[in-house]
Amino acid sequence: MPALKKKITKPPTAARMVEDIIGCKWSLTVLSLVRSGVKRPGAMQRRVEGLTAKVLNERLRKLLRYEIIEREVFAEVPPRVEYRLTEFGNRFGAVIDQITALDEERS
Amino acid sequence: MPALKKKITKPPTAARMVEDIIGCKWSLTVLSLVRSGVKRPGAMQRRVEGLTAKVLNERLRKLLRYEIIEREVFAEVPPRVEYRLTEFGNRFGAVIDQITALDEERS
Repeated sequence: MPALKKKITKPPTAARMVEDIIGCKWSLTVLSLVRSGVKRPGAMQRRVEGLTAKVLNERLRKLLRYEIIEREVFAEVPPRVEYRLTEFGNRFGAVIDQITALDEERS
Repeated sequence: MPALKKKITKPPTAARMVEDIIGCKWSLTVLSLVRSGVKRPGAMQRRVEGLTAKVLNERLRKLLRYEIIEREVFAEVPPRVEYRLTEFGNRFGAVIDQITALDEERS
């Protein structure tokens, strides 16, 4: 019997995440919205012109996968979904700020 | 007459540098040596087993290109060469420490 092939997705390193987030304008935008306390997808879209639901959801999923943000669903009608920064995401955001500052001071 | 082709090498972004340095064991080693005040290539090699002159020089050149370290040549016989961290390199090193810590606390 052949061995089972397990598909193991290793979480990316923090350095890889940093490059991924910094290299993607929309990821930075969504991260910045959550960091500034905007919790609901609808409110995020109203804040940023050109942010489509598709792009927003993709970026939210990525930030969730990286454990930078977390998601809470409230049992209401209609159901309410909120996103907030994790403890890791808080530190991650601070690193992003510092790297952005490094680039600014060099330019 | 054909237009001159200029080869413009844009400096990498800080995020790219972070990934490059963190992804390369020897770059991290050499950066850590310079950060701890080891100035001369000979002393660096004596400190680290397996660090060849070729690998050391490549990593020093990369750190110089990134302006993380700087190089001073003293007019002595034989000439003395010393490396030290730049102001940028100092802040860059602090960011590297934080990203390494992020990975450690997730594992």
